[in-house]
Amino acid sequence: MNHDFLGGEVSPFQEFFDLRAKKTGEGEVELVCPFRPEFCRVGGSNMIHGGVISTLIDIAGDYAVASVIGGVVPTIDLRIDFLRPAVGTALTAKARAVKVGRTVAVADVEVFDDEGRMVAAGRGAYSSRVG
Amino acid sequence: MNHDFLGGEVSPFQEFFDLRAKKTGEGEVELVCPFRPEFCRVGGSNMIHGGVISTLIDIAGDYAVASVIGGVVPTIDLRIDFLRPAVGTALTAKARAVKVGRTVAVADVEVFDDEGRMVAAGRGAYSSRVG
Amino acid sequence: MNHDFLGGEVSPFQEFFDLRAKKTGEGEVELVCPFRPEFCRVGGSNMIHGGVISTLIDIAGDYAVASVIGGVVPTIDLRIDFLRPAVGTALTAKARAVKVGRTVAVADVEVFDDEGRMVAAGRGAYSSRVG
Amino acid sequence: MNHDFLGGEVSPFQEFFDLRAKKTGEGEVELVCPFRPEFCRVGGSNMIHGGVISTLIDIAGDYAVASVIGGVVPTIDLRIDFLRPAVGTALTAKARAVKVGRTVAVADVEVFDDEGRMVAAGRGAYSSRVG
Repeated sequence: MNHDFLGGEVSPFQEFFDLRAKKTGEGEVELVCPFRPEFCRVGGSNMIHGGVISTLIDIAGDYAVASVIGGVVPTIDLRIDFLRPAVGTALTAKARAVKVGRTVAVADVEVFDDEGRMVAAGRGAYSSRVG
Repeated sequence: MNHDFLGGEVSPFQEFFDLRAKKTGEGEVELVCPFRPEFCRVGGSNMIHGGVISTLIDIAGDYAVASVIGGVVPTIDLRIDFLRPAVGTALTAKARAVKVGRTVAVADVEVFDDEGRMVAAGRGAYSSRVG
Repeated sequence: MNHDFLGGEVSPFQEFFDLRAKKTGEGEVELVCPFRPEFCRVGGSNMIHGGVISTLIDIAGDYAVASVIGGVVPTIDLRIDFLRPAVGTALTAKARAVKVGRTVAVADVEVFDDEGRMVAAGRGAYSSRVG
Repeated sequence: MNHDFLGGEVSPFQEFFDLRAKKTGEGEVELVCPFRPEFCRVGGSNMIHGGVISTLIDIAGDYAVASVIGGVVPTIDLRIDFLRPAVGTALTAKARAVKVGRTVAVADVEVFDDEGRMVAAGRGAYSSRVG
């Protein structure tokens, strides 16, 4: 995975998702996840499994926080609202750190399909304590 | 994936997780997810990615509801608390439907490592409206 | 409470909060809650109790949905992130319906103090099924 | 409010709820909130406002954590599922600390009406860092 702003850590699980990340602003990160048939809920349906979306939200929120504090952080908790089915589409997650406190950070994430419709919204609390 | 109590649907994404499900009571389901190196956050660390745990919670809660109403259902929203790292371990998710209403169902899920420690707790709201 | 866009229902609990609501756009509502010493966590501290903020978020999200479908609705679930203490301040909740589906609606709410700082962010799922 | 296990802090907001707390086990607390007409959503309906339930869950979870670490703590985030209406009833919240970490604690809370039916379930993350 390409996330030059974070350095070179390689994650086997993230490789499965083949994510492309870029920093889009202060505390803001965009992740693109290309479509794969392996993501689908039911063979042949092209409907992407919620687990793919949850994973993308978790990572995008983490990266938004990481872009501020300089390294990926443990997720404390995560909440996802599924707004519409994502069918046969690349997914773009736009994440923004809304708080980076001494011990806890919070990030908002919205996920869009390739027609720009929001398919899910998420929010995560992350441990921002370094060391 | 083997979930005889739900019938024969095959999910490409769930196959990646190689889950074993069993009904353990009225509205209760247990899912076991064997460890795979592909689940890890960082190569060689054996620390399982949060996305694996979120996915497992989503599916387990869905199956708990499905075991009552007879078919898998769309997830409305999902919340996950990560309590401790899961390292190099099979994961067991124990899910219980706490409400199955006319339009909304709620399931509680706890995820344990192979030493019986709770690594995460989740709760999901599902659409229980059939048809 | 004054919410002309919703009609004349009077709520004893909401009276305690003395809210002023206005519709600010399509699916958007703003609620203002004046400061009262009775809201405080500890006598003399002026720090507003989280329960006040949770209540305000619940109502604001409900009103955002209600402004679309024409009547207040049951809350399915609610999530609140507390971002900074709210001390001796009026609170302004800005709510926006991000989805109004056939059975479920989702609203985002941000709460600000009287210096415009975000003190909390919330999201709620509401039952949008009429009748 | 009577919470001898926590010491003598008086909270104006909590006085409105007239709570009775008792420690029921290690990391476990039970709060009882007597019914008041002021809690209702609509005058004459006796249906208790969700804000009352959210507040009760926040406090009960906090006290469960406090019973372990010796003092009340800031809430990081809170999630509430409303399972059935609570009508004209005292509410009993049963809270249990499921994790008390170095910086973050997590508590589970279930709220029951006076016939023992669960009306809501909640979970909160709290800052457990002392000092």
